[in-house]
Amino acid sequence: MKKTVHIGVALWVIISCFSMQSVAQNNEQADLKISKKVEQLVAKMTLDEKIAELTQDAPANDRLGIPFMKFGEGLHGLWVDGVTVYPQAIALGSTWEPELIKKMAEQTALEARALNITHIYSPNLDVISGDARYGRVEESYGEDPYLVSRMGVAFIQGMQGMGSERYDKNHVMSTAKHYVGYPENRRGINGGFSDMSERRLREVFLPPFEAAVKEAQIGSIMPGHQDFNGVPCHMNSWLLNDILRDEIGFDGFVVSDNNDVSRLQTMHFIPETRVEAALLALKAGVDMDLALGKIPEQLSFHSTILKDTLTKNPELVKYVDTAVSRILAAKYKLGLFDSEPKAVKKDTIVSKKEHQDYAYELAKKAIVLLKNENNLLPLDLKNLKSLAVIGPNATEQPPVEYSSYALLGGYSGLPPYYVSVLDGLKSKTEGRVTINYAQGCDLTGDSKAGFAEAIDAANKSDAVVLVVGGSRRTGGEGVDRADLDLLGVQNELVEAIQKTGKPVIVVLINGRPLSINYIAENIPSVLETWYLGMRSGDAIADAIFGDVNPGGKLTVSFPRSVGQLPVTYLERPDFVGSGKGRYKYSDKSPLFPFGYGLSYTTFEYSELTLANSTIKSDGSTTVSVKVTNTGSIIGDEVVQMYVRDDYASVGRYLKMLKGFKRISLKPGETKTVSFKLGFDELHILNQSMKKEVEAGTFTISVGASSLEKDLKTISLRVSQ
Amino acid sequence: MKKTVHIGVALWVIISCFSMQSVAQNNEQADLKISKKVEQLVAKMTLDEKIAELTQDAPANDRLGIPFMKFGEGLHGLWVDGVTVYPQAIALGSTWEPELIKKMAEQTALEARALNITHIYSPNLDVISGDARYGRVEESYGEDPYLVSRMGVAFIQGMQGMGSERYDKNHVMSTAKHYVGYPENRRGINGGFSDMSERRLREVFLPPFEAAVKEAQIGSIMPGHQDFNGVPCHMNSWLLNDILRDEIGFDGFVVSDNNDVSRLQTMHFIPETRVEAALLALKAGVDMDLALGKIPEQLSFHSTILKDTLTKNPELVKYVDTAVSRILAAKYKLGLFDSEPKAVKKDTIVSKKEHQDYAYELAKKAIVLLKNENNLLPLDLKNLKSLAVIGPNATEQPPVEYSSYALLGGYSGLPPYYVSVLDGLKSKTEGRVTINYAQGCDLTGDSKAGFAEAIDAANKSDAVVLVVGGSRRTGGEGVDRADLDLLGVQNELVEAIQKTGKPVIVVLINGRPLSINYIAENIPSVLETWYLGMRSGDAIADAIFGDVNPGGKLTVSFPRSVGQLPVTYLERPDFVGSGKGRYKYSDKSPLFPFGYGLSYTTFEYSELTLANSTIKSDGSTTVSVKVTNTGSIIGDEVVQMYVRDDYASVGRYLKMLKGFKRISLKPGETKTVSFKLGFDELHILNQSMKKEVEAGTFTISVGASSLEKDLKTISLRVSQ
Repeated sequence: MKKTVHIGVALWVIISCFSMQSVAQNNEQADLKISKKVEQLVAKMTLDEKIAELTQDAPANDRLGIPFMKFGEGLHGLWVDGVTVYPQAIALGSTWEPELIKKMAEQTALEARALNITHIYSPNLDVISGDARYGRVEESYGEDPYLVSRMGVAFIQGMQGMGSERYDKNHVMSTAKHYVGYPENRRGINGGFSDMSERRLREVFLPPFEAAVKEAQIGSIMPGHQDFNGVPCHMNSWLLNDILRDEIGFDGFVVSDNNDVSRLQTMHFIPETRVEAALLALKAGVDMDLALGKIPEQLSFHSTILKDTLTKNPELVKYVDTAVSRILAAKYKLGLFDSEPKAVKKDTIVSKKEHQDYAYELAKKAIVLLKNENNLLPLDLKNLKSLAVIGPNATEQPPVEYSSYALLGGYSGLPPYYVSVLDGLKSKTEGRVTINYAQGCDLTGDSKAGFAEAIDAANKSDAVVLVVGGSRRTGGEGVDRADLDLLGVQNELVEAIQKTGKPVIVVLINGRPLSINYIAENIPSVLETWYLGMRSGDAIADAIFGDVNPGGKLTVSFPRSVGQLPVTYLERPDFVGSGKGRYKYSDKSPLFPFGYGLSYTTFEYSELTLANSTIKSDGSTTVSVKVTNTGSIIGDEVVQMYVRDDYASVGRYLKMLKGFKRISLKPGETKTVSFKLGFDELHILNQSMKKEVEAGTFTISVGASSLEKDLKTISLRVSQ
Repeated sequence: MKKTVHIGVALWVIISCFSMQSVAQNNEQADLKISKKVEQLVAKMTLDEKIAELTQDAPANDRLGIPFMKFGEGLHGLWVDGVTVYPQAIALGSTWEPELIKKMAEQTALEARALNITHIYSPNLDVISGDARYGRVEESYGEDPYLVSRMGVAFIQGMQGMGSERYDKNHVMSTAKHYVGYPENRRGINGGFSDMSERRLREVFLPPFEAAVKEAQIGSIMPGHQDFNGVPCHMNSWLLNDILRDEIGFDGFVVSDNNDVSRLQTMHFIPETRVEAALLALKAGVDMDLALGKIPEQLSFHSTILKDTLTKNPELVKYVDTAVSRILAAKYKLGLFDSEPKAVKKDTIVSKKEHQDYAYELAKKAIVLLKNENNLLPLDLKNLKSLAVIGPNATEQPPVEYSSYALLGGYSGLPPYYVSVLDGLKSKTEGRVTINYAQGCDLTGDSKAGFAEAIDAANKSDAVVLVVGGSRRTGGEGVDRADLDLLGVQNELVEAIQKTGKPVIVVLINGRPLSINYIAENIPSVLETWYLGMRSGDAIADAIFGDVNPGGKLTVSFPRSVGQLPVTYLERPDFVGSGKGRYKYSDKSPLFPFGYGLSYTTFEYSELTLANSTIKSDGSTTVSVKVTNTGSIIGDEVVQMYVRDDYASVGRYLKMLKGFKRISLKPGETKTVSFKLGFDELHILNQSMKKEVEAGTFTISVGASSLEKDLKTISLRVSQ
């Protein structure tokens, strides 16, 4: 029996290797064929035609039969009307389950193909650096490079397909953005002054892009607005060539962020003219110049001024040829040459019920339980007579310029409908519970005129669901804040409702971690739901009544105040001297840490063991832990594994996440979870910025969050 | 006549060159002699004796006749008892008058020599990076590298002496600290996680050290607690050898910060043992291992464990020899071999009246007038019957562990006396004005018990001087804060006193810029006085009654809130896209900007002119402006000159200070102020980090502060 298994495994390994090899060989052959076709085509193109190819939507060329390649956004569903809108990226991150994101991206690709969109400007692989003032926190999977890598790779694999399915008629091309280090802006302002060491660039911001290239063969890359070391990303040949292509092995094309080539002139003040900006970007490796918006000079720029310069300087055309070749290769790979554009199949594919239901599944997985004193949650539907639903985010807010549903977060399409918390709770209770709704206040205003009605609603109810937070109006791209408290009179509303003495559940709907000190201290039960997509209210109602046991965990640390920023678990050791690395008068620790999230049940960790307690520096082993559901209901736990090289040749973080697994456990059930410990998990970047596993001891921590008290540790020794 | 002047100038130039040359030749010859002596001495030393030489206070060696070299702190006077205490560094910065700092350092050197202290751990050349949470803001001259350079060079030249006076019996050796980039800690916490690009290191933090070496031949350098690019400064050979010695030309010795060699192990977790830490530092170029505090293992470490290692590894002794040689050379240069240590002359030299009077002069020059609505200030002594003096900082507070007078700031000695604001006002008014004093509240407590008495004092007075802020207890080394508001109930005290309707003058005594929004908006007259030294109250009383017309200007930007941080005028261009580089809901601009400060008189700028409007890239010219005192009393103005390269090959700040001059003008008087514009002022760091003047246009701004509205601009063209 044992032997058979071994032979079976061996055979499987051989077959897998063989089939992987043949896929690789096939890909290589296909790439060669495409290269030849591209070369022939470029030879036939006029300068006008080449220049056209480099511009947005890479338009069709009827003379040569070149098809167009339409772009779209697809962070959590497409950014067009009538589509499925899934939970926002920060909520997707909170699921800690890459396979879920992969399936969402597959569905998004299907909806895109139905709309003839084949080039998607997602995912956002930006790692949040602990500054929640930045409005785009919500577009990221979180503050950890490994977590963002896992989520990003899954997204890209789902959207682009893998192996023989790659770029087939059910898949499209992904764009990883914003390369690289973009969320780091010194004042928390989008596109603002960024500054970091090469080490931090490589340790924190680069890994998701490296994974996207190596593990998911990302098709395109978009640089960030900012510069690195004074050289804007859009003209940074070191980043775009030395690192991205030569070191990491990227072979796709680079598309500029919107208007960022012209911003080399208008924001970075490097070239004095637009044409110099175009040439700086082109020479550094920006292949496509995205310039949306109907700025008249932009519209005529490529066809007149740039053409004129290229005509006068024919030696520059080689850069154009390289860029055109990369874009044409993408069109070939996407199969766009093979068939006529199909008629748009909006009604049958886009946002079909299966996709909407999946958006609901994702939403249920993303909810994070921050607090649940005395097991107030879940509410018992059978014993509840009345429920107050209060707060500015209990219902959808008036439309904003960015999106019709402000509670879907940024980069959201317009779904056929949106289920608010009020909708969800009404539908869940189906007339069995009296719902007393009151808005109380709006998100940002000073008026307390609605407080009385809200207090009244609370007073006549058995419990209160109080929905506060933010919206696309108070967060998202271009909405950066200098404080992180609840806006307007929301906190005062919470205090007023809490004073009624009724059991209060606060539901947070928002896109960035907020310094919710009063809530954390005084409200018995708190759910962080981020933006959960078109089925938000259904999922939240499930969690409130126990049809879902929340199992999400935070992927961003919550600050106690804006004065603590940046707040991330990626801390360096405290200063052991004057002040002892603390603030006087305030706590430095997060309000809620990275990896944190409760459940309606409880879990116990035991028997943390290493398969080998000593390995060679080129070896590997596994660490295992037993996790038991010690409560009385089924629940999910996200098991996290962190690594620290105790002594090394360079400064390091206190620990770094190097493995995680979300498991589901029935009451009393125990599962063993194992994580690999090898080169990828144990290396540091040495003083020469090379990855190296150094001999010495390593502290391996496994547990329920990044907090020391939630982790069990074991020591691994690595010998030379 | 004209000819004679020319000949005179020419002669003077020739003589100067000659005498500079002969000084250089003499120095070179002296250095050669010292080298030989050192070499001979080192050859005679045992390993024990060498190791002893590397430790704190570089002790005497009776066998070989090597004298000791005692260290001390001397940021604003010595940090010992009985000395003169001058204004704190941030106040010295506010004078914008390097010559004043030079004279202070000369006096400090005299006091040091009288105490046989010859090696001073000052000045602090840290450039504040806009984060006022950091408690050591007060130890810096400010947020601008050029300003810090000018002040630092003056300090060192004063303390060490120049030319034939260098290190003579009236001068001592200076230490520039903390090399380099130390104030940049991501969370505003001393010694915390630091991160920056090489560009920012070179543009912002390195220039004062470069100036200290090149212009003032600084004798010793102290590295910072933090790391750069993951390599701690205390083992960073790139910083300590490639940049400091090879590139900049430093030829002195490097002394560790207190216990920072051992912190390579205990904080950075790089070596596993103390002896490895010692060797890492020694090999990288740390020559002296400062390890204060009576940690038993430290006391025996050098003489036992390190010695044992060096004995077993004789090839390492060469590093010890280099370090010992550098320290011995310092002792020779300081003339310590030439004479027996003198008896300490504490009573005759230390804090003599001349020095105390100079501390008073400095204090008068440092005061910054932030606001003066309707010319409330100066008060008219003749027409004032009664004055309320209120606030926790009106008198000296109880002693703290750091200093006996908490209102002198960090690194303060204990002067023979301290003049508080109350003392100063009493002495100034000499019984002609009834002074009604009330404390009101203390600095940090919650009690409003004293409010009634304070309101009563205000009500029965013609005007109120309200003294609030911070102290060494709420700021300074190791006292970092997560918010920047006035602590305790101070702001409520200000509101309560303002409500009395009496004319209120707020005097701030503190060490970091505070977000004093209520004061800025509501109080008619506000003085920022920082810590003005032992004669604080005398200088403040002078300013209040018009015997001094405040002429200081801020060298750090004041934030509106901690959520805006970092706030400095060294901003990069705003993002021209979503959000437009602003915060939603709050202002991004400073409450008071860098370079800002008012006067009791007014100044008008006119006729901004360039000597040449076009120069070659290796050429130079001057920019001149006329400044007129348009008011009715004599006053000082700090004329500031900022440069921006309009388009360049790398990203840059919006402008950088490249010249300043403090002038005094009688009513109606006009002076012309000129600044040089050449390589030092016009260069940028190109992509290869080399200084280069690039062709193109430059915007030259001259005026009264860093605010655009206070500046006149003119365009300079640089041709190839």
